[in-house]
Amino acid sequence: MSNRPVLVVGSIAFDDVETPFGKRENALGGSALYFSLAAAPFTTVNLVGVAGEDFPKAAIQMLNAHSVNTRGLAIVPGKTFRWGGKYHDDINQRDTLYTYLNVFADFRPIIPESYRTTPLVFLGNIQPKLQLDVLQQVMHPQFVALDTMNLWIKTTPRELEDAIRQVDLLIINDSELAEITGKLNLIAGLQKIHQKGLKYVIIKRGEHGAYFSWNKGIFFSPAFPVAKAIDPTGAGDSFAGGLMGYLATCNQITPAALRKAVIYACVLGSFCVENFSVDGLLNLSLASIEQRYQFLRRMVKI
Amino acid sequence: MSNRPVLVVGSIAFDDVETPFGKRENALGGSALYFSLAAAPFTTVNLVGVAGEDFPKAAIQMLNAHSVNTRGLAIVPGKTFRWGGKYHDDINQRDTLYTYLNVFADFRPIIPESYRTTPLVFLGNIQPKLQLDVLQQVMHPQFVALDTMNLWIKTTPRELEDAIRQVDLLIINDSELAEITGKLNLIAGLQKIHQKGLKYVIIKRGEHGAYFSWNKGIFFSPAFPVAKAIDPTGAGDSFAGGLMGYLATCNQITPAALRKAVIYACVLGSFCVENFSVDGLLNLSLASIEQRYQFLRRMVKI
Repeated sequence: MSNRPVLVVGSIAFDDVETPFGKRENALGGSALYFSLAAAPFTTVNLVGVAGEDFPKAAIQMLNAHSVNTRGLAIVPGKTFRWGGKYHDDINQRDTLYTYLNVFADFRPIIPESYRTTPLVFLGNIQPKLQLDVLQQVMHPQFVALDTMNLWIKTTPRELEDAIRQVDLLIINDSELAEITGKLNLIAGLQKIHQKGLKYVIIKRGEHGAYFSWNKGIFFSPAFPVAKAIDPTGAGDSFAGGLMGYLATCNQITPAALRKAVIYACVLGSFCVENFSVDGLLNLSLASIEQRYQFLRRMVKI
Repeated sequence: MSNRPVLVVGSIAFDDVETPFGKRENALGGSALYFSLAAAPFTTVNLVGVAGEDFPKAAIQMLNAHSVNTRGLAIVPGKTFRWGGKYHDDINQRDTLYTYLNVFADFRPIIPESYRTTPLVFLGNIQPKLQLDVLQQVMHPQFVALDTMNLWIKTTPRELEDAIRQVDLLIINDSELAEITGKLNLIAGLQKIHQKGLKYVIIKRGEHGAYFSWNKGIFFSPAFPVAKAIDPTGAGDSFAGGLMGYLATCNQITPAALRKAVIYACVLGSFCVENFSVDGLLNLSLASIEQRYQFLRRMVKI
C-alpha cells in the first residue's frame, strides 16, 4: 500500500456528550481528530489545528502512534475548543448545549514547511476564508476536498463559492446541498452544483448512506448498518477520513477510485458511531475495515 | 414472461391532494389501485375492494385495459372512501386534512371463486382481522405478503401478530418496524422480527431506498432518484405492486428473486411519485421499467 500522506485542517475539541447510551465528558473530538484517526489506517496524516494548553500530551502521543503527524498542531495559551451536546432517543436528533470556541476563535492555520507538498488535502469545516488561506500555503496538491456547513453557506457565501471553485470535491449533506443550490430535490441540486464547475460532489446522508456524483453518473453506497449507534458525533468527519485515506492509496484519483472510496468512507463512519468520542477509530486494522467493505458490497449484490 | 396472477386486497379511494407542485381533486387513489396499476405491467392482477356508486365506469374500464380484473371490486350504495391531504415544501412531510371512510367502513372482503387459487397474494393495509379473513378464503397461495400501519400495531396488535405469522413477507417502513419490535435500531428490529418466525421482511425508506432481510443476509436498493417528486401519495403501494408483479414472473420465489424484486419495487415507486394520483403508472412499458432497473444497478457498481 502506498504511503502518500493526507493533510487535514479542522477543529480539535473536547466534547461533553450525552446520548441514550451514556455520557462522556472531556472526550477528544473535533473534525480534524476524527478525520485523522479515520484516515490513519490507510496512510500518514498531516494534522493542522489548534489546541489550548489543557490538551493532554497523552493525546498527542496517541495521535503519533496512529501515524498522525502533529507538527502542524499548534498548542497556544488558553483553553481548547469545547462543545457540549445531547442526543435524543432518536439518535439522529441532537441539541447543542454550548460551544466555547476558546483558542479556536483566533485560529489561523499555518502549514508547516514539511506539509506543503502533501498531495491530498482535506479542508475541514472551518471559515471559508481560512480554507482559502490553506490553499495558498500548499503547493499544487493533486486532490483537494472541502467540507462546509450551513453557517458558512449563510454568512460567507462569496468566500465559500471562491473556495469551492478551487477544489476537486465537495463533501456535504442533503440540507447543505439544498441551501447552496436552492433546490430541495437531490438530482436538481446536483445538476446545479455541477453547473458551477464543480467536478465531484459527495452527499452524506448519515444512516441512509451516501451519493457520489460526477459528470458521467451517480454512485450510491448504503451506510453500514450498525447494531448499536452509541454516539454519532464525528461520523461525517470519520466518513471524510475514510474517503481521503483510501484515495491516498490509489495511484490515480478517478471516478472509479472515488466510488470505492465512498464505501470505505461509510465503513469508517460506522466504526465511529459504535463508540463514544474517537474510541471506535482507535487501533483499527485494515482487515476489519475490509470486512465491512465486503459486507457493503454483498448488501447490493443481486 | 409467465402470467401467474397476483391478488390484492386494499382500499379504493378518491383523493384530494395538494403538493408544492399543484392540486388534484377526485383523483383515483387507495392502496389497491396503486398496487394494481404498478403490478399490471408484469402480470394480471385480481383486485378485491369496495367502492361507492360514485365510482366511474371509465375507471373500471381503465383498470381492465391494464390487465386488472375487477370481478372482486364491489360497487355498493353510498360514497367511495375519500382522503384529503396536503404536502409540505419538504415533500416527505404531509398533513391529512380529512378521511371519510364512507363505504370502506363496512368493507368485508369477499374473494370471488375465480380468484381463490391465485398463487400470489398481497394483503394491503387494512384491519388485520380482514387480512385474516382473506387468508381463510384463498386456497394454499404460494406466497403471501402483508402491509400494515401504526394504527393496527397500536389498536389490534394480537390480530396483527396472527396475520404476520401466516405470511411469507412483511412490508413496512422504519417507524412501523420500531413500533412492532420496540427497537429503534434497524438491525436490532430486524433480528427481533425474524425471531417471531417471520421469513422475509422488507423495510421501505421512501427516497432513501429499501432493505430486504432474510435468514442469510440483508440486501439494499437505493431509491430511483427522480428529478421531480410531484406527489408521493401511493408510493409505498406502488412499491409493493412492483415487487409482487415482478415476483409473479419468477418460477420460484427465492431470496435471489426477492432481491431483484426490491429493485423493481423501487422503480415502480419512482414512477408513482413523478405525477399526481396513479397517472405515473398508466401505460408503463416493461422497457421503461427495465431502463430504471438498469440505472439502479449501475448506481451501486464500483
